[in-house]
Amino acid sequence: MLVHQWEEHDQGDTDWKEMTPGKKIPVFVDGVVLNGPQTDVKAGEKFVEEACRLMMEEVVLKATNVNEKSTHGQSSGSSSTPILGATGNLVNHELSLHLQVCEWQPPEQLRQLLDLEMRDTGESQDKLLKLCQDVIHFSVKTSHPRFFNQLYAGLDYYSLGARIITEALNPSIYTYEVSPVFLLVEEAVLKKMIECVGWKEGDGIFNPGGSVSNMCAMNLARYRHCPDIKEKGLSGLPRLILLTSAECHYSMKKAASFLGIGTQNVYFVETDGRGKMIPEELEKQIWQARQEGAVPFLVCATSGTTVLGAFDPLDEIAEVCERHGLWLHVDASWGGSALVSRKHRRLLHGIHRADSVAWNPHKMLMAGIQCCALLVKDKSDLLKKCYSAKATYLFQQDKFYDVSYDTGDKSIQCSRRPDAFKFWMTWKALGTSGLEERVNRAFALSRYLVDEIKKREGFKLLMEPEYTNVCFWYIPPSLREMEEGPEFWKKLSLREVAPAIKEKMMKKGSLMLGYQPHQGKVNFFRQVVISPQVSREDMDFLLDEIDSLGRDM
Amino acid sequence: MLVHQWEEHDQGDTDWKEMTPGKKIPVFVDGVVLNGPQTDVKAGEKFVEEACRLMMEEVVLKATNVNEKSTHGQSSGSSSTPILGATGNLVNHELSLHLQVCEWQPPEQLRQLLDLEMRDTGESQDKLLKLCQDVIHFSVKTSHPRFFNQLYAGLDYYSLGARIITEALNPSIYTYEVSPVFLLVEEAVLKKMIECVGWKEGDGIFNPGGSVSNMCAMNLARYRHCPDIKEKGLSGLPRLILLTSAECHYSMKKAASFLGIGTQNVYFVETDGRGKMIPEELEKQIWQARQEGAVPFLVCATSGTTVLGAFDPLDEIAEVCERHGLWLHVDASWGGSALVSRKHRRLLHGIHRADSVAWNPHKMLMAGIQCCALLVKDKSDLLKKCYSAKATYLFQQDKFYDVSYDTGDKSIQCSRRPDAFKFWMTWKALGTSGLEERVNRAFALSRYLVDEIKKREGFKLLMEPEYTNVCFWYIPPSLREMEEGPEFWKKLSLREVAPAIKEKMMKKGSLMLGYQPHQGKVNFFRQVVISPQVSREDMDFLLDEIDSLGRDM
Repeated sequence: MLVHQWEEHDQGDTDWKEMTPGKKIPVFVDGVVLNGPQTDVKAGEKFVEEACRLMMEEVVLKATNVNEKSTHGQSSGSSSTPILGATGNLVNHELSLHLQVCEWQPPEQLRQLLDLEMRDTGESQDKLLKLCQDVIHFSVKTSHPRFFNQLYAGLDYYSLGARIITEALNPSIYTYEVSPVFLLVEEAVLKKMIECVGWKEGDGIFNPGGSVSNMCAMNLARYRHCPDIKEKGLSGLPRLILLTSAECHYSMKKAASFLGIGTQNVYFVETDGRGKMIPEELEKQIWQARQEGAVPFLVCATSGTTVLGAFDPLDEIAEVCERHGLWLHVDASWGGSALVSRKHRRLLHGIHRADSVAWNPHKMLMAGIQCCALLVKDKSDLLKKCYSAKATYLFQQDKFYDVSYDTGDKSIQCSRRPDAFKFWMTWKALGTSGLEERVNRAFALSRYLVDEIKKREGFKLLMEPEYTNVCFWYIPPSLREMEEGPEFWKKLSLREVAPAIKEKMMKKGSLMLGYQPHQGKVNFFRQVVISPQVSREDMDFLLDEIDSLGRDM
Repeated sequence: MLVHQWEEHDQGDTDWKEMTPGKKIPVFVDGVVLNGPQTDVKAGEKFVEEACRLMMEEVVLKATNVNEKSTHGQSSGSSSTPILGATGNLVNHELSLHLQVCEWQPPEQLRQLLDLEMRDTGESQDKLLKLCQDVIHFSVKTSHPRFFNQLYAGLDYYSLGARIITEALNPSIYTYEVSPVFLLVEEAVLKKMIECVGWKEGDGIFNPGGSVSNMCAMNLARYRHCPDIKEKGLSGLPRLILLTSAECHYSMKKAASFLGIGTQNVYFVETDGRGKMIPEELEKQIWQARQEGAVPFLVCATSGTTVLGAFDPLDEIAEVCERHGLWLHVDASWGGSALVSRKHRRLLHGIHRADSVAWNPHKMLMAGIQCCALLVKDKSDLLKKCYSAKATYLFQQDKFYDVSYDTGDKSIQCSRRPDAFKFWMTWKALGTSGLEERVNRAFALSRYLVDEIKKREGFKLLMEPEYTNVCFWYIPPSLREMEEGPEFWKKLSLREVAPAIKEKMMKKGSLMLGYQPHQGKVNFFRQVVISPQVSREDMDFLLDEIDSLGRDM
């Protein structure tokens, strides 16, 4: 037998058990003592407390202050490593007096600065906390008011509080029995988002990313088109075609390839000069596909394209879809948040006619990565029919409660995080009016930036934005006198103005924003305003800084 | 023009600007003041602090103490709602002296107890904190030493600390420029996990769940089999077949349907009495598929099946795959953690011959939901070739650093959480030996439970476990004298013994473990040991409690 009492303790001390009431005789199995918990609880709790303290001091309290001193390397004797010196980068050293957006290190050097290796034995608490400090120090401060690099930014305190509680509770939301609160919260948030879209009822699920939401919508549309595909697959069927604009998110291609549809069967519809899908071109492409013997089943419109922030004309696209019996999915991952603004929701006019909508509150509404809803208009349980696999170990039908609350079988995931909860907390804290104010302010700041760009020498707007994506070129002094012909654009491109300025700003750590070439246009900057911590001063700083970094080019 | 100065302030006070140095004239755009940040920073910071305090007091400090008093409804005047009384459930009331695993409320009642609605205006801080308390109170305590309901449990302090920091930093790991630290950490963790599998090199990516990892492996195998499918899709191709055991995770079917392969093209290979795939049957099915004119491309073996915890014989399966040129994927989502134990890794003998492995450290290694790696043996950049969509706005090729560090294009996601980081922190804290100890202890506790089940009247083991899944029936006294024939099993099933006991334990809140019918066997309990906070006493309690709840049946 593997189980035996610890004989040593019993020998010659027959009263041991009685003499220590409450203590039990240690039980060994396979050399492991099984009495009592094994963990050093006190040390663990202390670590969590210290991590909270670091998180508050080094991230939260500094999030709003662009002039905050960096304390790295100065904190209570924990660091004797000359981290700032190690780079040999004097610019960084000068800037250490201010909180940088990032402290740039090339991969090889950063790998040396961090102690990444996992060893056979554990590290001391002090060492672990030092590691945490290093992780914070060398991470990009996405809550910094001058981080404009992606479609998320800033710090929402209410979401963060909710996320901290979530991490400790560590739930997975597939069944009501293990996640009662979070499933009800998800239901409430979905209901409210569905209202924003303009549907009376609907269904939905939170997914780990807008890309996954788009994939799920695509699969759902395919299921509605031909339920047999779930069981029989695509083999032997004619080509299925989905149509989307040339400006759509790249996840459309990823999804088409993942779902076995193939990227060649994504038909890209031409857009107008502002990046909006042309409904007439859509209709042409549908006919074209049919003539080829292929089967169009889905149109994906975009509300808020990634680069230009363009909104497809949903009403006209819905007309086309209705005429052809096609599923209309709207990728409003980025633009969906305009729905909470009475002033700006007109950008998504017609969205209520969509069959499904992807909307990521982790972008403009700052719910924290990730928070992505797929909303579905259908009320006939299509989502469940399409996705369910009916695992008997998880979705037992003989439970003592209403198992329609076990919504996990609507998802492609098994374990699933309660992403609705953090957004719910923010919505509770700010109210719909607070969310609206946030969106309106982001629009207003973008307006301000656009007007400044127009006023200032050396800046050239790509186009009037519809949303908060402000796209522009910086023209260095040496090119300002040139005529805007092919030669001009060639020079702007060959001198790598945007990449070079980006490199300088990263190394200085003063600012982060993205650049890209797009549809034949050479590299330009894309500035996106999201966070309410951002102010007019940051917009001015942005332009001043780009000018100061690019003036010599 | 939309931009204008705030004239009121300037009127009749021309020196205002000079008199308040540092203050700037307010700028309005579209009725929004753009100077300075908008958020009430102090209130926000306070909320995060209070959330941390609640998280520590109500979740972390209580995680290890099964006798902790519940403070809900007793805390400083914040609750006048008679929450415990509202259910009319006296059992709950009695139990309020102890920290329950769960405080059961049916959906309709819980919806009334919680204030779920999001309104136009925001709630007060006090109200928000009360909501947080309610969320904690009514949530299942997955870190409670008597939560055995899923394949995750317990609280890892080091992972939690890392997760708290992550939430505040709010990173998305697609490019090195925005996530330098987390991408290097992911690289280091993948490298170490690849070592555990027994490969010298390899590639990999963290995914939001084992289901997604399995899907991604399936797509990768398909791409290796026929790269053209990425562009052309499956239309017109012969049926692709994947083979897996009858005991595999349900995500195999979900994946096959999602990828356009079809659930009918998942061929389920017979298992032996212990739930292990029979290699001879696998080979037969491969021939069978070929005879049908279909094309097998993938075998998915399971290391640690969900219900029985069975391990497929990888060496023999690898032989078959090599003979037939098929990709071997091992779903070690659950069982992979045995790889860190020198004693128990023999269960996965032959895993180094796999082409890909899914392994979820969020299960037995307690990294927190979710933490799921897909590991790939290929060194020819297959993962990137298969998944990349080369979005020019994100994965620019003219960056100033080595863009091979921009690993996001290997994923089906765009935004992606740094799930490797929390696991890295735990690994750093415990060392490989600490992880090993944790796994060995879980095995030993399961051994103890098995032996207790064999000793005790009224408990019947389903089979000797290979892993930490201990499956057993509880036989109520009224059935103990019956012979174990069809009549006996029929009665055990008709009386709904397991579901009824589950209902009682949920309503009492003393314990949570799962039950299911499986492969013709009537409902049985599945007990899984994971957390190092669990001790022998909890195993004894488990059996005592089931007996006490079921004795009258």
